[in-house]
Amino acid sequence: MTEPLSPSAFNALFLQARTHNGWLDRPVDDALLHRTWDLARMGPTSANCSPMRVVFVKSPEAKARLLPALMEGNRAKTMAAPVTAIFGNDSRFYDMLPRLFPHTDARAWFSGPEKAEIAATTAFRNGTLQAAYFMLAARALGLDCGPMSGYDNVRVDREFFPGGQVKSNFLCNIGYGDQSALFPRSPRLEFQEACVIA
Amino acid sequence: MTEPLSPSAFNALFLQARTHNGWLDRPVDDALLHRTWDLARMGPTSANCSPMRVVFVKSPEAKARLLPALMEGNRAKTMAAPVTAIFGNDSRFYDMLPRLFPHTDARAWFSGPEKAEIAATTAFRNGTLQAAYFMLAARALGLDCGPMSGYDNVRVDREFFPGGQVKSNFLCNIGYGDQSALFPRSPRLEFQEACVIA
Repeated sequence: MTEPLSPSAFNALFLQARTHNGWLDRPVDDALLHRTWDLARMGPTSANCSPMRVVFVKSPEAKARLLPALMEGNRAKTMAAPVTAIFGNDSRFYDMLPRLFPHTDARAWFSGPEKAEIAATTAFRNGTLQAAYFMLAARALGLDCGPMSGYDNVRVDREFFPGGQVKSNFLCNIGYGDQSALFPRSPRLEFQEACVIA
Repeated sequence: MTEPLSPSAFNALFLQARTHNGWLDRPVDDALLHRTWDLARMGPTSANCSPMRVVFVKSPEAKARLLPALMEGNRAKTMAAPVTAIFGNDSRFYDMLPRLFPHTDARAWFSGPEKAEIAATTAFRNGTLQAAYFMLAARALGLDCGPMSGYDNVRVDREFFPGGQVKSNFLCNIGYGDQSALFPRSPRLEFQEACVIA
C-alpha cells in the first residue's frame, strides 16, 4: 500500500508549479535530461507503445534553427531557456512492439493502410501522455517547464524530424524559472463543473 | 528554487507504480476523487483551456451500463475496480475561455467551422495531458491506476456523454492494486533510442 506523498511534493508537482516565461541563467545538465527520461518512460502507454521522441534543443546553433518557427511572443523566452524540448510522436512506433510488448506480436494492431487512423490516434494520445509524464518528472527533479503549442509545425518537423516519420506535438522550455516574471495564476474548473460520479 | 522530490516519491509516481489488473476490496472515497481533481486541474494546458471532463463510474448500476462496451479481456477487472474513470474531452471547451483565460477573448482561436480541426486537436492534446496529470495525481495520493484504451467508444459516449459534445478518450480503473496480480514489467526505450540533444 503506497502512502500519499508529502504536501511539499503536491506543491512541486501541481499546486505551486507554474508555466514559466522567464528563466534564470542556470544551465541544465544533460545528465538531468537523462534522469527525467528515465522517470518519464516508466509511465503507462497503450500496449507499452511508447511513441514519444524528443529533440532537446540546447546549443546556440540548434536554437537558431528553431527561432524562425516560433510565434513572435514565444521567441525571447525560448532563446533564454537553457533547453527547449521538441516532443514528437513516431508514426511507426509499432515497429518497436516486438521488444516493448513481448507477450504477443502487436504490430498487426497498428500496421497497414486500414489501420492508419488508429495508429495515428494511438501515437498522438500516447505520445501526449508521455509528454505530460515528462513535464511532471522534470518538476519532480526540481526543474520548471514552459510548454507551448503555437508554432510552425511543418517547419519544425522539416528541421528537426527530417524524413517525416516523427511529427512534432508541442514544445516545452525547460530550466529554472524566474518567479518574478510570472503572471497571476488563471482559475481552474471546480470538480462539479468537469466531473460526475455515477 | 525547488528541491528534487525524495526517492520514495519517484517510486510512487514512476519507478514502482504499475498498471494494475487486480484490485483489493477497499473502496475509494468520493473525497479522494475530489482531491485528485484538485491537484490534476492545476497542470498546464494550452491557454488554460482545460477540456477534460470525467465520469467516475462507481455504482453497480453505472458499472452495468459500462460493461457491454468493454473488450472481453477488460471486463472482470473493470467490474472489480472500485472506480472506473471515463476521461472525455469537451469539443466546446472554448466556451469556458472567457473565465479560464481572462487576459483576452480567446474563443475566436477555436470557434467556427474553419477552426474545427484546430479545436479538435487542441481538445485531444490537452484533454490527454490532463488525463496523465490525473493518473499521476492519483498515484501521488496513494491510489493505483489501470488505464485502458480498447473499448466501444460510440457506445460509451452514447451512454455516458449524451448529446455528443463530449467524446470519451480512454478509461482508467482506480483503486488499490493487488500486487500479486501483476505481470512482469515490460522494457522501456533507452534515452538514446528516443531522444537527441541538439
